[in-house]
Amino acid sequence: MEVLERLKEEIINKSPKGAKIIDVQFEGPELVIYVKNPEIYTNDIIKQLAKDLRKRIVIRPDPSVLMEPELAKKKILEIVPEDAGITDIIFDANTGEVIIESKKPGLVIGKEGKTLEAIKKAIRWAPKPVRAPPIPSETIKAIRATLFRERDEVKEILRRIGRRIHREVIQKGDYWIRVSFLGGAREVGRSCLLLQTPDTKVLLDCGVNIAYEEKMYPQFDAPEFSIEDLDAVIITHAHLDHCGFLPGLFRYGYDGPVYCTRPTRDLMTLLQKDYLDIAEKEGKPVPFSSKEIKECVKHVIPLDYGVTTDISPSIKLTLHNAGHVLGSAIAHLHFGEGLYNLAYTGDLKFDTSRLLEPAVCQFPRLEALIIESTYGGYDDVLPDRAEAEKELLRIVIEHIEKGGKILIPVFGVGRAQELMLVLEEGYNQGIFNAPVYLDGMIWEATAIHTAYPEYLSKDMRRKIFQEGDNPFLSDVFQRVRNTNDRRRIIDDSEPCVILATSGMLTGGPSLEYFKNLAPDEKNAIIFVGYQAEGTLGRKVQKGWKEIPIVTKNGKTKSIPINMGVYTVEGFSGHSDRKQLIRYVRKVKPSPEKIIMVHGEESKCLDFSSTVNRLFKKETYAPRVLDCIRVK
Amino acid sequence: MEVLERLKEEIINKSPKGAKIIDVQFEGPELVIYVKNPEIYTNDIIKQLAKDLRKRIVIRPDPSVLMEPELAKKKILEIVPEDAGITDIIFDANTGEVIIESKKPGLVIGKEGKTLEAIKKAIRWAPKPVRAPPIPSETIKAIRATLFRERDEVKEILRRIGRRIHREVIQKGDYWIRVSFLGGAREVGRSCLLLQTPDTKVLLDCGVNIAYEEKMYPQFDAPEFSIEDLDAVIITHAHLDHCGFLPGLFRYGYDGPVYCTRPTRDLMTLLQKDYLDIAEKEGKPVPFSSKEIKECVKHVIPLDYGVTTDISPSIKLTLHNAGHVLGSAIAHLHFGEGLYNLAYTGDLKFDTSRLLEPAVCQFPRLEALIIESTYGGYDDVLPDRAEAEKELLRIVIEHIEKGGKILIPVFGVGRAQELMLVLEEGYNQGIFNAPVYLDGMIWEATAIHTAYPEYLSKDMRRKIFQEGDNPFLSDVFQRVRNTNDRRRIIDDSEPCVILATSGMLTGGPSLEYFKNLAPDEKNAIIFVGYQAEGTLGRKVQKGWKEIPIVTKNGKTKSIPINMGVYTVEGFSGHSDRKQLIRYVRKVKPSPEKIIMVHGEESKCLDFSSTVNRLFKKETYAPRVLDCIRVK
Repeated sequence: MEVLERLKEEIINKSPKGAKIIDVQFEGPELVIYVKNPEIYTNDIIKQLAKDLRKRIVIRPDPSVLMEPELAKKKILEIVPEDAGITDIIFDANTGEVIIESKKPGLVIGKEGKTLEAIKKAIRWAPKPVRAPPIPSETIKAIRATLFRERDEVKEILRRIGRRIHREVIQKGDYWIRVSFLGGAREVGRSCLLLQTPDTKVLLDCGVNIAYEEKMYPQFDAPEFSIEDLDAVIITHAHLDHCGFLPGLFRYGYDGPVYCTRPTRDLMTLLQKDYLDIAEKEGKPVPFSSKEIKECVKHVIPLDYGVTTDISPSIKLTLHNAGHVLGSAIAHLHFGEGLYNLAYTGDLKFDTSRLLEPAVCQFPRLEALIIESTYGGYDDVLPDRAEAEKELLRIVIEHIEKGGKILIPVFGVGRAQELMLVLEEGYNQGIFNAPVYLDGMIWEATAIHTAYPEYLSKDMRRKIFQEGDNPFLSDVFQRVRNTNDRRRIIDDSEPCVILATSGMLTGGPSLEYFKNLAPDEKNAIIFVGYQAEGTLGRKVQKGWKEIPIVTKNGKTKSIPINMGVYTVEGFSGHSDRKQLIRYVRKVKPSPEKIIMVHGEESKCLDFSSTVNRLFKKETYAPRVLDCIRVK
Repeated sequence: MEVLERLKEEIINKSPKGAKIIDVQFEGPELVIYVKNPEIYTNDIIKQLAKDLRKRIVIRPDPSVLMEPELAKKKILEIVPEDAGITDIIFDANTGEVIIESKKPGLVIGKEGKTLEAIKKAIRWAPKPVRAPPIPSETIKAIRATLFRERDEVKEILRRIGRRIHREVIQKGDYWIRVSFLGGAREVGRSCLLLQTPDTKVLLDCGVNIAYEEKMYPQFDAPEFSIEDLDAVIITHAHLDHCGFLPGLFRYGYDGPVYCTRPTRDLMTLLQKDYLDIAEKEGKPVPFSSKEIKECVKHVIPLDYGVTTDISPSIKLTLHNAGHVLGSAIAHLHFGEGLYNLAYTGDLKFDTSRLLEPAVCQFPRLEALIIESTYGGYDDVLPDRAEAEKELLRIVIEHIEKGGKILIPVFGVGRAQELMLVLEEGYNQGIFNAPVYLDGMIWEATAIHTAYPEYLSKDMRRKIFQEGDNPFLSDVFQRVRNTNDRRRIIDDSEPCVILATSGMLTGGPSLEYFKNLAPDEKNAIIFVGYQAEGTLGRKVQKGWKEIPIVTKNGKTKSIPINMGVYTVEGFSGHSDRKQLIRYVRKVKPSPEKIIMVHGEESKCLDFSSTVNRLFKKETYAPRVLDCIRVK
């Protein structure tokens, strides 16, 4: 590769005298310099190199200079103060990195990175401090194991991706930018946008619509789509309508990078596995197997919010907080040399929730905005959040006082954690006194939340870091581990709150609880999320007094519904209409073009014409298979 | 091919007893049955077969039964009455056809086809009567020669195309229809639309923009475009902004059918050759050579107006008169089984001209309309045609009376012939008495017009067929054959009218005349067409009093402009705004969606919003590289 040779030469010229450079490689979007004396590169020198070369620079010690692992381990334990609470030390000979997992990674880093620097100097390995999750996550453990076991392949993948990103392109004719909508346009589900320029093709999200068999997968028969030509896939967040087809892409031959935040990587792995498990149980076809979920993990290039990365010869990507769910991102794309900027919001919450900060609305530059429209319709104004919380607690208290059990069917990732925070506060303030049981994948999703406190709201971070009080660790929460646990909770007479998946009573533990709790009027069910037409949740919500249920021996019996049935709106992870309009008003700089996606047809059209009228912007509500040239 | 085998079986079952079928082949969109006794298939039987098989059926005599050509020629001359004026008889052993060119093909056909049937019976060859053009056309002669010489290859091409059209397709998922705009959207020039369905890709027009170097060719870098996947190209008419890149497609590997009318085939061949000649003289690059113009001719499947043809497994095409230029067509496309219908107008004249009938506005079904917008702007109302003709003749008379020469720079195809008819009438009625000289390609284009009287207006056909008076043959017209002729016309003192190309004085004979006639105030120049910014025509029109001209020895000299300078609007081959709106009002059935193309940005936008407001239709003014899903 000529590009790399040229860069090598420039690096040698611009490196401090005495630098013993052994190798220079593209690894993913980064340019890695392997050197015998890495300490010679100060942060200032690295910054200057990055600026001159316009690349993300990583300095790594050449393998020949690394201290023997057992010895190095001892050294680390000597240098790092015991208070840090080191829980694991993992060496990666391939990258020259050593992962130091601890309860307080801040102490591994030290003031202004001093401790880290001392470790580096002593052992030559590049130390990577990570937080030991206060609740151990099976998912994270499995991901780490995969990446460690298959590190050779991962390295090869990164180098291949790196060469592709930095390939030379001869620009002929106009530089144009267009977006094809392969899914999630005038509909919700199977979000998938194909971004095209003369030299690049990028997929923004790659979802499935589980509820709609005929339109389950994105419209990959669009003639402009071909897996071989894809440069990158960007996943805005972990919900299946944004990433449920991603492993399928790998099954059909995709072999390139997946850009997303670390929490998104972990949560989407959890949800993809769950999707696979449920589909296999129900005998439904899934376009991938667990093998491809692993492929996915190996191809993820995790990005933190605010870090700008080359993803193709002419496109730079930056992820920003979207406020929707842990790790959810707005993808900001910068094209060419200051030529054009486009942001795709994914799902958006432009309001502080308990869990997350509101979505970012300031960008360095912005010409076009693609925005979700879930609640973009005229009537889509949601109740005030504080009111919703009060109402929820009121119902909880009422039924606990009656000696009943309160079932809250929830979606495991996002809404469950929001409700946990509300309930924890209520319990903590003595408003009610009963255990909150967590059933289904909620526990594991919560474990992942605790691993990434830096992605949580300021309020949460303050609690966790300054007050040492992580609400997720409260003893009000009790994990339901198996059917025996579940049986016990149902049978004993103690009042309690139960958070259980699935959120629409379409299966899973929530259905099991419902069948057993429904006949007793002391109990209650509280719906906090959208109940789709045709689901059992919708029927109960609409006031059916009896529900036919198929029993284990295949007979149908009728269950009377005597429990209290409540719906509390206002916990949505989406912006309502007011917030969406406020986002368009506030977003800086104000874009010329605004494209409405991710909403039912009427909502996209309504939101589009409203913004056009209010702000005199060029707005679009494309259909699936439309393609808009933005530049 | 299984499809063909199945059809063969069905044909054998449904043929009259005693039919000696030798072979059945797809040849282009037709299903050809080779048979030893073709006379056994009456027209009724053929119609019934076509209906049952839903194919265009052609019965041909098997080569083994054909009469020896010399003998057959004698037979034909015996059977056909001498009055028919046979000028040529050409046998095509490959198709079993004999082309009988005559002055009165009606007499070769005979009453209710009796004479034709008698010939067929006698010689077994299938007789194809064609009209001997009253003015011989070099272009038509060359095209016939090519098709005859390369008949083996042409047959092979037709069979290949036939197999592709009738291939079996397994329909998975939705049937969608979308159109990508590769050129001629919010602009004029390089018209090119890529129609896509799950099983088919078709190009509608394939033009160049000669005036705009950076946007000269259609945007073939659109990712959904690939030459290998193209099923068909449809050319609406012969002007270069609609067909100027077509030979280029063949250079880059296209090998499929081109659907257009016969006059379009012949006129576009003339114009493509002219484009090539001029570009070669000026040393400008052209994306093809004369070889590819011939390839084009060999791949044309000519269609008459109103004949419906399969062009792919799920699309049927019908061409209808567009009123713009000889052979110009509206392409009506029918998708699937009564599923959806789309019409693309190409360039449109919705008003009777002297030459042509107004555009067709009635279709069996119509859901979407793609319409040109050249004069779609608010101010684009053109003067009345009759007024324009009066004004033109007034100027002609005035300057002839002064003893001057009147130069009318014109585009060779279309407008030149319109003006010829106006001038012929004026001359015929004694309004003026002076010769009208035709220079440049006008003569040849006129020759092609005389070969297809059935494509002309009712009025013209009445004149030609019933009154035996073909205005193009009037002795007022005199052909300028060479530079000597031209010199003589310039030098002698007789008043005259000169129609000469190019239409904007950018080169060719019109420029030569202009340089010589400009200084004399007795003379006049009349602009009848649009003069683009930057052309000499525009400068003269704007009133420049002196024009610098580069002489043959490379020096620049100044020429004074003393001649009368006039502009007469109203001869356009396009509908003006009023006519466009009237077309949208009148078109039946009224389509749901209307897409505006082929106009400057402001005209497309203006026309689109006007139609949206007036008719409450979904309207679009797409950009180049946009793609709209219509179904």
